[in-house]
Amino acid sequence: MDRKIIRNGRIVTAIDDYVADILIERGRIVAIGQSLPAADDTEVIDAAGLLVLPGGVDCHTHLDNTFGDSTTCDSFESGTRSAAFGGTTTVVDFAFQRQDVPLPEAIARAQEKGRDGACVDYGFHVIVTRVDAQALADMRDAIRHEGISSFKMFMAYPGSVMVDDAAIFQAMRMVGQHGGMVCLHAENGNVIELLIQEALAQGHTAPKYHALTRPAILEGEATHRGIKLAELAQAPVYFVHLSAQEALKHVVEARDLGVPVFAETCPHYLFFDDSVYDSEDFDLARYVMSPPLRSKQAQDALWTALRTDDLQLVSTDHCPFCMKEGHLGRVRQKPYGRDDFSKIPNGVPGVETRLATIHDGGVRTGRISLQRMVELTSTAPAKLFGLYPRKGAIAIGSDADLVLFDPGENHVISAQTQHGNCDFTLFEGREVTGKVRQVYLRGNRIVDGEAWLGGPGQGLYVPRGESGGW
Amino acid sequence: MDRKIIRNGRIVTAIDDYVADILIERGRIVAIGQSLPAADDTEVIDAAGLLVLPGGVDCHTHLDNTFGDSTTCDSFESGTRSAAFGGTTTVVDFAFQRQDVPLPEAIARAQEKGRDGACVDYGFHVIVTRVDAQALADMRDAIRHEGISSFKMFMAYPGSVMVDDAAIFQAMRMVGQHGGMVCLHAENGNVIELLIQEALAQGHTAPKYHALTRPAILEGEATHRGIKLAELAQAPVYFVHLSAQEALKHVVEARDLGVPVFAETCPHYLFFDDSVYDSEDFDLARYVMSPPLRSKQAQDALWTALRTDDLQLVSTDHCPFCMKEGHLGRVRQKPYGRDDFSKIPNGVPGVETRLATIHDGGVRTGRISLQRMVELTSTAPAKLFGLYPRKGAIAIGSDADLVLFDPGENHVISAQTQHGNCDFTLFEGREVTGKVRQVYLRGNRIVDGEAWLGGPGQGLYVPRGESGGW
Amino acid sequence: MDRKIIRNGRIVTAIDDYVADILIERGRIVAIGQSLPAADDTEVIDAAGLLVLPGGVDCHTHLDNTFGDSTTCDSFESGTRSAAFGGTTTVVDFAFQRQDVPLPEAIARAQEKGRDGACVDYGFHVIVTRVDAQALADMRDAIRHEGISSFKMFMAYPGSVMVDDAAIFQAMRMVGQHGGMVCLHAENGNVIELLIQEALAQGHTAPKYHALTRPAILEGEATHRGIKLAELAQAPVYFVHLSAQEALKHVVEARDLGVPVFAETCPHYLFFDDSVYDSEDFDLARYVMSPPLRSKQAQDALWTALRTDDLQLVSTDHCPFCMKEGHLGRVRQKPYGRDDFSKIPNGVPGVETRLATIHDGGVRTGRISLQRMVELTSTAPAKLFGLYPRKGAIAIGSDADLVLFDPGENHVISAQTQHGNCDFTLFEGREVTGKVRQVYLRGNRIVDGEAWLGGPGQGLYVPRGESGGW
Amino acid sequence: MDRKIIRNGRIVTAIDDYVADILIERGRIVAIGQSLPAADDTEVIDAAGLLVLPGGVDCHTHLDNTFGDSTTCDSFESGTRSAAFGGTTTVVDFAFQRQDVPLPEAIARAQEKGRDGACVDYGFHVIVTRVDAQALADMRDAIRHEGISSFKMFMAYPGSVMVDDAAIFQAMRMVGQHGGMVCLHAENGNVIELLIQEALAQGHTAPKYHALTRPAILEGEATHRGIKLAELAQAPVYFVHLSAQEALKHVVEARDLGVPVFAETCPHYLFFDDSVYDSEDFDLARYVMSPPLRSKQAQDALWTALRTDDLQLVSTDHCPFCMKEGHLGRVRQKPYGRDDFSKIPNGVPGVETRLATIHDGGVRTGRISLQRMVELTSTAPAKLFGLYPRKGAIAIGSDADLVLFDPGENHVISAQTQHGNCDFTLFEGREVTGKVRQVYLRGNRIVDGEAWLGGPGQGLYVPRGESGGW
Repeated sequence: MDRKIIRNGRIVTAIDDYVADILIERGRIVAIGQSLPAADDTEVIDAAGLLVLPGGVDCHTHLDNTFGDSTTCDSFESGTRSAAFGGTTTVVDFAFQRQDVPLPEAIARAQEKGRDGACVDYGFHVIVTRVDAQALADMRDAIRHEGISSFKMFMAYPGSVMVDDAAIFQAMRMVGQHGGMVCLHAENGNVIELLIQEALAQGHTAPKYHALTRPAILEGEATHRGIKLAELAQAPVYFVHLSAQEALKHVVEARDLGVPVFAETCPHYLFFDDSVYDSEDFDLARYVMSPPLRSKQAQDALWTALRTDDLQLVSTDHCPFCMKEGHLGRVRQKPYGRDDFSKIPNGVPGVETRLATIHDGGVRTGRISLQRMVELTSTAPAKLFGLYPRKGAIAIGSDADLVLFDPGENHVISAQTQHGNCDFTLFEGREVTGKVRQVYLRGNRIVDGEAWLGGPGQGLYVPRGESGGW
Repeated sequence: MDRKIIRNGRIVTAIDDYVADILIERGRIVAIGQSLPAADDTEVIDAAGLLVLPGGVDCHTHLDNTFGDSTTCDSFESGTRSAAFGGTTTVVDFAFQRQDVPLPEAIARAQEKGRDGACVDYGFHVIVTRVDAQALADMRDAIRHEGISSFKMFMAYPGSVMVDDAAIFQAMRMVGQHGGMVCLHAENGNVIELLIQEALAQGHTAPKYHALTRPAILEGEATHRGIKLAELAQAPVYFVHLSAQEALKHVVEARDLGVPVFAETCPHYLFFDDSVYDSEDFDLARYVMSPPLRSKQAQDALWTALRTDDLQLVSTDHCPFCMKEGHLGRVRQKPYGRDDFSKIPNGVPGVETRLATIHDGGVRTGRISLQRMVELTSTAPAKLFGLYPRKGAIAIGSDADLVLFDPGENHVISAQTQHGNCDFTLFEGREVTGKVRQVYLRGNRIVDGEAWLGGPGQGLYVPRGESGGW
Repeated sequence: MDRKIIRNGRIVTAIDDYVADILIERGRIVAIGQSLPAADDTEVIDAAGLLVLPGGVDCHTHLDNTFGDSTTCDSFESGTRSAAFGGTTTVVDFAFQRQDVPLPEAIARAQEKGRDGACVDYGFHVIVTRVDAQALADMRDAIRHEGISSFKMFMAYPGSVMVDDAAIFQAMRMVGQHGGMVCLHAENGNVIELLIQEALAQGHTAPKYHALTRPAILEGEATHRGIKLAELAQAPVYFVHLSAQEALKHVVEARDLGVPVFAETCPHYLFFDDSVYDSEDFDLARYVMSPPLRSKQAQDALWTALRTDDLQLVSTDHCPFCMKEGHLGRVRQKPYGRDDFSKIPNGVPGVETRLATIHDGGVRTGRISLQRMVELTSTAPAKLFGLYPRKGAIAIGSDADLVLFDPGENHVISAQTQHGNCDFTLFEGREVTGKVRQVYLRGNRIVDGEAWLGGPGQGLYVPRGESGGW
Repeated sequence: MDRKIIRNGRIVTAIDDYVADILIERGRIVAIGQSLPAADDTEVIDAAGLLVLPGGVDCHTHLDNTFGDSTTCDSFESGTRSAAFGGTTTVVDFAFQRQDVPLPEAIARAQEKGRDGACVDYGFHVIVTRVDAQALADMRDAIRHEGISSFKMFMAYPGSVMVDDAAIFQAMRMVGQHGGMVCLHAENGNVIELLIQEALAQGHTAPKYHALTRPAILEGEATHRGIKLAELAQAPVYFVHLSAQEALKHVVEARDLGVPVFAETCPHYLFFDDSVYDSEDFDLARYVMSPPLRSKQAQDALWTALRTDDLQLVSTDHCPFCMKEGHLGRVRQKPYGRDDFSKIPNGVPGVETRLATIHDGGVRTGRISLQRMVELTSTAPAKLFGLYPRKGAIAIGSDADLVLFDPGENHVISAQTQHGNCDFTLFEGREVTGKVRQVYLRGNRIVDGEAWLGGPGQGLYVPRGESGGW
């Protein structure tokens, strides 16, 4: 029997912090204790001086996802390998119900991609772009039978994936009654589209206009609207990639009243701000994501909200497109919008840098505690999206998804040393304190220093329970 | 060696919920796991079907405390025995620095009482009623050397324990710099005193006028003032027995901004409201506590705040005075104020009923989760007041303070079947679901069903670390 | 020369209150003073004991307006006659730019109706239902050349008059730059339409379902959205018929920050509440207006907001449809929706009852002052919509639009004694204190007790200046 | 008979703006009109091209007031002369009930000073420093019989004029029942006193420490407290010299809820900010007033609040002390605190500069309208403090207190050209647009360009009606 003991690590969970051994059998944690006896066949890993964290759960990745003309540059394999090196052992990616694709078929296609390529465990949200009686029934069934309890909808991108308020309301009401939750991309799409067309008409084609045509006030507006629709539907709601203070304000107000409103932010909003949009240079395409970077003041507010639990999750919104056309054979990447910012595929990589950056920028600086770091990146996502207690915990019976993390090791982040397909990272050249040393997926060591011990197909689909519990 | 295994319990912590065995050695938890092997000398306790909770931590009790002419009816012994039956294994009581008593002496006197009588572990806050250079130095030293990191001050009771804003501010600033925290009784004492004197002058002597002369708006005012003093002092602040929506509002606002403001509420505010103050009957003296009961609407707001973490603790403010003069030899109890409500000693018992009532009224009804119940009554108090990780956790190395709780057992609360000295309980006759079955203090079984296996002197003083960490 | 003196009246303006004579020449006020000398040819009207108010300005009427299949039962003649008897000497009605009608043509048609029928002075807002480059240019030109500086847009009624957020934003931006203002009907049309279709599908056809399918939260949502669009457009915005606390909250917040947001409420929201929607009776069709009546609590909040200037105007939204099909030859009135509440034409009469009801319910009860009543019903609308100082003032040079009002005279409101075409009034049978005794339009007495001295064509079109000044 | 016509002026009131003549008889306005006929004995003043404003009402001056060891440098005569040149025709100064002085005696003393020296009309607030049964009765009687309906109390200056919350509450309740209002100096005196003593103990004696020891948060705290006391007392409350955003926030919140809370700010807070406190130079003593200057951000918020009516008045808090010891024989002026900032008398001159600075900084810049300027400096103070309609209006029957103001005339403010006793002005050297040309007090021309036509004793005591009406 596969049996391991991780010895003498400093175990940090969302609430606790203590030194002990962890005994793993058949991929699960079966004992935690002082000086646990090791049978002869037991592999003993020395974790003295290291943190032992529950494997990260990243509920917002886009692997092999196609938006418009462009496809993200990470496959399921490369993306989940990259995730593993970043201390993430579970991702929740997307199945995409395009207008003409029935929801079950969308799920089936996503499952196929995951089955072939996943190096860590995974689940799916479904992106819903059409709501009718069939789609509503399919959503209910996805919760009941497919382990899919969250559904992403867009308030932006009219003519493409945007749905109207009635569609959102109907979806919320249906899935709310069955233990599911709608996740919203909250930006007022119609006004943004107008601003984009006006900018282009004025010859403003550079990447910076992507940011200028997506003002924070329109994220705030849509966030408020989403909350009110959820209140009317008596359903929980989740905001992806919350970036603006104008949006945060509404989340805070709703939560103060006990309304089940949840939100994530992403590392790029925590470490970069809109001062980067300072030239017409096309190189700024690397900062093209939606929503765009916000003010320095917003950044501080996001950090405070992470501490006060007004924001509950840090997800990566890993949505990588290369800065060089043709890198690893990928086309229609960032340069696709060289003459028209609206064609630059929206998104940045990040699945590998979450833990180290949050540790460095959050824990080392005293903004959040170690336990809160674990909660934000592992336990809270697992609980909110129905993966707990299998994921997100160091507890008896939980999957032995474990990260050995050296809190004192400095390293410099660089795209060159990362393990995904993307040719850039926003954190290029940044020295951070804290590094993933080993990663275990259900007891299997898949990362050991720079060595990759995992492989595609090793990741399992994790059917999820209910989403949206407070 | 004293060694026990609690087998097959459903372990519920502030974050987790799983079934496992707990191995206890020398009073500490040394292993948690599935089917832990039991040595011959190991006592095995079957906890199948029961919840195993970390022992409760009650940071607001008044045992053998004297206010004005009256002394609470519970001794350290009777009060901590009662606590144990209620699933509480640590209390933080008070050392009382009267005007003329130096702070070290006040601490020494309290230590003496604890040493003789405590049946569960204990610590102290110091009530500070005079602030000068010596007192400030003493407070700093108490944090550094005595394990006392919290100091209670009164914004009410002028001419007795009330201190002015400058005193509060100075204390906050000093203790905040040294890892301590001021706890405030927040009511505007001067105006209340005026209202009391006016009521008495009008011949309004019945207990109900206690409530009528302490309006919620004056708790709100003082709470706001306390927060602003803390902001100026750049120190954390804690509000004891928060009862009014008017006060909660300010706590919520401050926390939204990331200001380190904390507050407890008490079970009596969660289960009773001001509709009881409906007659001139002296029997209403049982409802005389400060602050008094508030509106039904406030009650709902308190429950919501417990869920949203706008309130972080449920403490009991166990401050028992008997309804019958002479009960167990106690005098100057509630009847002392028969002709003058202002002489009715303020306070109600509650140390034994916290867990069962919160389980019944909070968990069973769906207002809060089991984990949140544990957090509110054990983990959060332990963390906020420097008792963690020794207390408040089921984790390797923590004290084996454990409660076996039957979540399905109904029982009727009655003063007659309780284990303290008080002759009444506000919950008299209330049937609740959920009952403490066994209690372990550092591995020692001190409660077993109705049997009391503990004794005075068994409780140890627990020097506390820093208070007031977010 | 036409010359009159109104002698000894108690002149009440938005700010003042004093007794004096008013000398009128050529339709204008030329002197105000004590014991003004009267030339031989001067008609002297004794106003002793009466209030002399500036003529009412009602910026929200629907005379001879067609919505869907139904046309309001008042013609310009009957409606303005009714207005006059209610103390209103200027109305701002609507020109309706239907999808296929160019804006100038819509204005021309409205002008024609006004010219033939108006008994009091009048202006127009334009209802805009399509926004493109031509429409935007037409709006600008309407401000510059037509004296039309306000444009109403609908966030409700999809498939009919609803426009999307981008259209609203564009219109706001354009007219804001030229001294104009967008007026919004703020309800989330898409969700309401869904709720309506669901209700009908469930066989809920009675009038009460009109109210149940238009919840207050959706007015709140749309109001917030409208404010944010205006902020982005850096333009003022005006909310018509604000009824819900959920909407008021956003207006208050914006105004506190100095954002130029304005709103009216209507008498029906101030005197009736949703407790009327208590049966399936078709007679409740009389209470079918949009938004529907709200809670009693909302009503109190509206009154407070009228006092605090968080609401600036009381308009009538006079939009009369008869309860009896065929009354005065009108068809497709309220009974048109007998089997389908969604076909009941939305609207109630009110142009004649504004002053008396606000005086009775507002001034007599002490909720607002006499001066504030004048401001809400005359001066503020005149100023906000560019009619001042010609209208809304008792000042030298202003039009001598004057109302002699007896503040002590009781009368019973009844449709039978009113002067418009509608066969019902919500105020039927209500006794109120305060009655219009005489009305002067530019110096011409048009109402004298029950006598009608005016006539169609007497009302003049008043080109308006800028709208939306703070 | 004394009869004048002010011809062709542009009359601006709090609500109106029109060109007309004003006929004055026996000190009152008897007619306003176009081309009013002038009898032979009528003096005709040509006001063409000038604004005609109601005389300013300044409800916060300190003439010949003694605080601690120092007396303000303006006598009633010099101060009211200065006021007149600034366009102010009525001041409300203070009668000072010191601890040992009965309230009626304090009033009598003030009356005496006013009678001898006043060059413009005047009233009094009473400063109350001791509240007992007699004082409460005296306050009631002052309202009823003395025409004094406002009472100032201090939340600052412990050991001197500070009163406790119970005293404030009692006073509010008593005067609120009789048509009076308490005016609060809202700063937390106890904490400020501590900060002062600490600063001095550290050798921080320069004027800048005056500002550093009076942080904005303590004005916010006291303001909140004052509002809550007023709510409990069911009485209106007025905040003098509001300067901090932290205070404004509470006023805004209360007013949004319809609570009768009022506040003034002063020109120095609108034009200067705390960036002046940048050195240890004693010359900064000129900026020593209480509260001190606040942040630039606060300044913007105050201007916005003046527009939105969250602040209702601009008063001067004219409290002049000379920068040079011995100037005009005055001693214990600013230099008195050369070695101890806490001895610098608090206060700045301002009674002469209000209108011109508000016109220049408010109207010329577009922050407020001309009418709002009139409301803030004349009509609102007159109404709030019971002087209306005699003061604050250009209306038939009102006192002919009129200011002819040239809105286009530039002039440079300088202490040398002012008409009071103070040897400095904060506005020294500032060029402003808009100048008082003539001033009429009850029809008497007292200022004509630079000529002073008035004299002591010309000003009359104006008994005031109720204060605090919304």
